[in-house]
Amino acid sequence: MKSFADRLIEVLGERDSPVAVGLDPQLKWLPQEIKDRAFSRHGKGLKGASQAVLEFNQRIIDTISPYVGVVKLQIAFYEALGPWGLDAYSKTIGYAQKRGLIVIGDIKRGDVEHTAEAYAQAHLGEMEIDGSFVCPYSVDAVTLNPYLGGDSVAPFLKRAERYGKGLFILVKSTNPSSRDFQDLRCGGERLCERVARKVNQWGRALVGKHGYSAVGAVVGANSPSLAKRLRLLMPRAFFLVPGYGAQGAGPEGLYPYFNKDGFGAIISSSRAIIFAYQNPPWRRRYGMRNWEAAVREALLRMRSEVAEVVGRIRRRGG
Amino acid sequence: MKSFADRLIEVLGERDSPVAVGLDPQLKWLPQEIKDRAFSRHGKGLKGASQAVLEFNQRIIDTISPYVGVVKLQIAFYEALGPWGLDAYSKTIGYAQKRGLIVIGDIKRGDVEHTAEAYAQAHLGEMEIDGSFVCPYSVDAVTLNPYLGGDSVAPFLKRAERYGKGLFILVKSTNPSSRDFQDLRCGGERLCERVARKVNQWGRALVGKHGYSAVGAVVGANSPSLAKRLRLLMPRAFFLVPGYGAQGAGPEGLYPYFNKDGFGAIISSSRAIIFAYQNPPWRRRYGMRNWEAAVREALLRMRSEVAEVVGRIRRRGG
Repeated sequence: MKSFADRLIEVLGERDSPVAVGLDPQLKWLPQEIKDRAFSRHGKGLKGASQAVLEFNQRIIDTISPYVGVVKLQIAFYEALGPWGLDAYSKTIGYAQKRGLIVIGDIKRGDVEHTAEAYAQAHLGEMEIDGSFVCPYSVDAVTLNPYLGGDSVAPFLKRAERYGKGLFILVKSTNPSSRDFQDLRCGGERLCERVARKVNQWGRALVGKHGYSAVGAVVGANSPSLAKRLRLLMPRAFFLVPGYGAQGAGPEGLYPYFNKDGFGAIISSSRAIIFAYQNPPWRRRYGMRNWEAAVREALLRMRSEVAEVVGRIRRRGG
Repeated sequence: MKSFADRLIEVLGERDSPVAVGLDPQLKWLPQEIKDRAFSRHGKGLKGASQAVLEFNQRIIDTISPYVGVVKLQIAFYEALGPWGLDAYSKTIGYAQKRGLIVIGDIKRGDVEHTAEAYAQAHLGEMEIDGSFVCPYSVDAVTLNPYLGGDSVAPFLKRAERYGKGLFILVKSTNPSSRDFQDLRCGGERLCERVARKVNQWGRALVGKHGYSAVGAVVGANSPSLAKRLRLLMPRAFFLVPGYGAQGAGPEGLYPYFNKDGFGAIISSSRAIIFAYQNPPWRRRYGMRNWEAAVREALLRMRSEVAEVVGRIRRRGG
């Protein structure tokens, strides 16, 4: 079984970019033509809304898949649409994987033993139904919340090893209140640093041939000075870095998230890419009729900003 | 709008018991007759399995609703069954609420701003779809994970106030690894005590006429000495206390979870009640044909154990 980290590095290499696009579809921002069509066919309810989300996602994936190797799906936006929304979530996963994309389920689950096992079955595989095996949301990797500790992560670790899946443990989030607990000083260091040590430990047995572990960390793009410290505590972890673009973080802060080899980080942007056509400059240039062009342009700009950072790191490191 | 805490106290009073039953249906333990019927009608897949879960839940609810006022649904066991599983989750919520039960969605979500808003819409209400409002999983209260801090809780607080809903913030879980982070010493006290202080603060504006807040805490039944301390830090919070029975905690440890008025805790048991017929003593007495009798007997035994504790506290306090 190929390690998740090796597979990730290969896909990032094929697309020549460590960028992920977040498929976080908020109904109010979807192009009206897509909503109108879905509502007229499936009704103006959760089913119609979910169908609109699925079509939107498919068109985004078609637009972005030549340029990026990873998509991150924030499950909350699908959960909000009820069972139909999760059907759209499941179908989006399949659609993206068929196009060669690695799919990260941003689920941030965390629970006690049997419950963690049920979540792991749901998202990494597999559940037994009288002798046959199924997995409704079979993503390539998930994000997890660490508050419940090691045994809440164990069922996911087991599947990372068995099925070549990946985990990204939430270490530092992008929101202002992340300071409430994540920045608390616990025995000489911040809580998020203690979490980072555990992430490093949990990932030790799952290091692939490129030297990276299947157990990564979520570290928000707006904490570059902390990222430098976390990089030292988790040298073999891939950092999944949300909050690029919309949450105010630009390319100049990205350096500490990468290792000297130019690997070790996936920079993720959601709203700033998939709803780029809502932003006046792109909107003026392309109009709503050509919203996919705005998405592509916003992605290509981000991609070249990140490529410049990685290029400098590699020149400096070599 | 009546406060959640007042509504809770009234329902607990009507049923004369501060007990909650956890509807955590694991397919492998469901009565075979229910599974066979569901599989023959809906196929041996996720749809059939979800239908079996729904019938099982309905029969459990019919059995227990004269004796308890609260059910807790661990969403992981529904999520594991895919979109059909969440359809069963949604229908179970409605079925329980029609019988006058308060339904707690044990979701332990926690995420950043817009995402937290989407989760709050999904579970407490409501989402707008072109002018109409829907909520797929409208429970009376949810559990939340605190790791992301105050702004991750804010969208739920807003709805607690607006719609009379309740929150239970995870403070201390029942699993052995809860010590990994929850017990860390941070500035002279444990992390879970810091979380408890925040819970108390978040709940201050939502205190009802009985003196209890709509913002409660999850505190595992196997930490009685810690519970004593947490009770002081959160005097107005209802404790949702999982792990009674199956996870080894018995009635003697329950005293510190309650306030001196005999209120302030809901003791929850899941597997030990709903799968009571799997346990040899009940199984021998009732056999699988009469599994609901085993469920009722196990619940009545727990109910009287807890009643004795509450009775002693009230006599002592009065």
